[in-house]
Amino acid sequence: MSDHQKHRPHNDEIERLYGVHTVAEALKNPKRKFIKLLATKNAADRLTDEIATARITVEPALPRELDRLLGPDAVHQGLVLDCEPLRQPRLDQIPRQGIVVLLDQVTDPHNVGAIMRNCAAFGATALVATARHSPEASGVLLKSASGAYEHVPFAKVTNLARAMEELREYGFLLLGLDSEAAEDIGDARISRPVALVLGAEGKGLRQLTRKTCDLVVRLDMPGEIKSLNVSNAAAIALYALHRSGGSPSENARA
Amino acid sequence: MSDHQKHRPHNDEIERLYGVHTVAEALKNPKRKFIKLLATKNAADRLTDEIATARITVEPALPRELDRLLGPDAVHQGLVLDCEPLRQPRLDQIPRQGIVVLLDQVTDPHNVGAIMRNCAAFGATALVATARHSPEASGVLLKSASGAYEHVPFAKVTNLARAMEELREYGFLLLGLDSEAAEDIGDARISRPVALVLGAEGKGLRQLTRKTCDLVVRLDMPGEIKSLNVSNAAAIALYALHRSGGSPSENARA
Repeated sequence: MSDHQKHRPHNDEIERLYGVHTVAEALKNPKRKFIKLLATKNAADRLTDEIATARITVEPALPRELDRLLGPDAVHQGLVLDCEPLRQPRLDQIPRQGIVVLLDQVTDPHNVGAIMRNCAAFGATALVATARHSPEASGVLLKSASGAYEHVPFAKVTNLARAMEELREYGFLLLGLDSEAAEDIGDARISRPVALVLGAEGKGLRQLTRKTCDLVVRLDMPGEIKSLNVSNAAAIALYALHRSGGSPSENARA
Repeated sequence: MSDHQKHRPHNDEIERLYGVHTVAEALKNPKRKFIKLLATKNAADRLTDEIATARITVEPALPRELDRLLGPDAVHQGLVLDCEPLRQPRLDQIPRQGIVVLLDQVTDPHNVGAIMRNCAAFGATALVATARHSPEASGVLLKSASGAYEHVPFAKVTNLARAMEELREYGFLLLGLDSEAAEDIGDARISRPVALVLGAEGKGLRQLTRKTCDLVVRLDMPGEIKSLNVSNAAAIALYALHRSGGSPSENARA
């Protein structure tokens, strides 16, 4: 066992990453500890710079060997990288600023990955999900995140309502997204830091989650089907919050 | 051959729909001509009203029969509906108002389906794609569209640049989305009708497409990875256009 493992509080399983963007961003991440990089000749040629930066030795592989390793549905693009898991923060270690995104039982790993990517694009401070009823940070989620996992702290909590109360103590405004809300997110005055809470597609926010919010807003939709994929709703909400800027606040709620 | 088929200009293949939302919206669509509905007992019970409205006889099926029919990856939720294809408009038949979305070789059917869903949510007038280098309106695309296909006319064109020129003649402002553009979509004054042009993820707009645009705008992103999934970019752009309202214009460009 190497020395740094003493400092890692959580499990020490391997994080297996695949796909060009996902692997490239990981190789550029100075916080990463690499175990093994399998790559086809072509794929390794594409990432020459990143591989040099990471100072890692490529283990040559054939595409069909990677297919066999990952199963037939994984779009590995010739790259599989095994790493030690990134250390993830507890809620009290997240910077008390900007936008934190909370997921209320969003279970589809494609959606959680896409939301992570949106978080990276809009500079969200962290993504928070429940330990249960959320996908693992692996495989499909990391591929959909397209490298965003290297940039967005991903905190798992046991109880979402309690986590919300804790964030409120740290000064976060608890902002829920709900199609039934009266006000559009673009019209609301929203202070920072803010915790944006998103429910699962179809189900929306659970009752206790909604009740725990300080403010609930909707996204204006004039069309025939007033329902968006949850990652698309997240993208719009992050853009709207970014555009509205918001005022810094020591404590969003008395 | 029945009489109505004479009026249909394009191919007469079957449109096979599956999944609860996709099938439910189709059953409610008075323009649909149904061929066959296969449903498990549970699924048929969920859609009692829609099935009554459509006056269609359910052919009972077992889940594994539907699995076999569609392949293992199709999330059919106990429902498979065969229909005659919806008639799709030519460009000159699209209402000359609001927002039309154009896709420049977006090939992933998940993304095109999600964009169609965004179009329905924001009341876009039509979705336009090239006949080649675009997915068929079937299977995964229709499932991802989650019923939006019944609400959003989907026009296929041979040549995108020529289609853009044609839309310009009809008064549309040609608005491209490009990460390198100087102005954010939320800051631009954008007249209606407008044709929003989206490029493929990674590749962006092709050169001729970009050159043919009247105006090119970006989406402000403050984060580390300034790249979004194309359906998420579409969602943000449609929301921003909806919020900005835009001024009606007889002719967007002199």
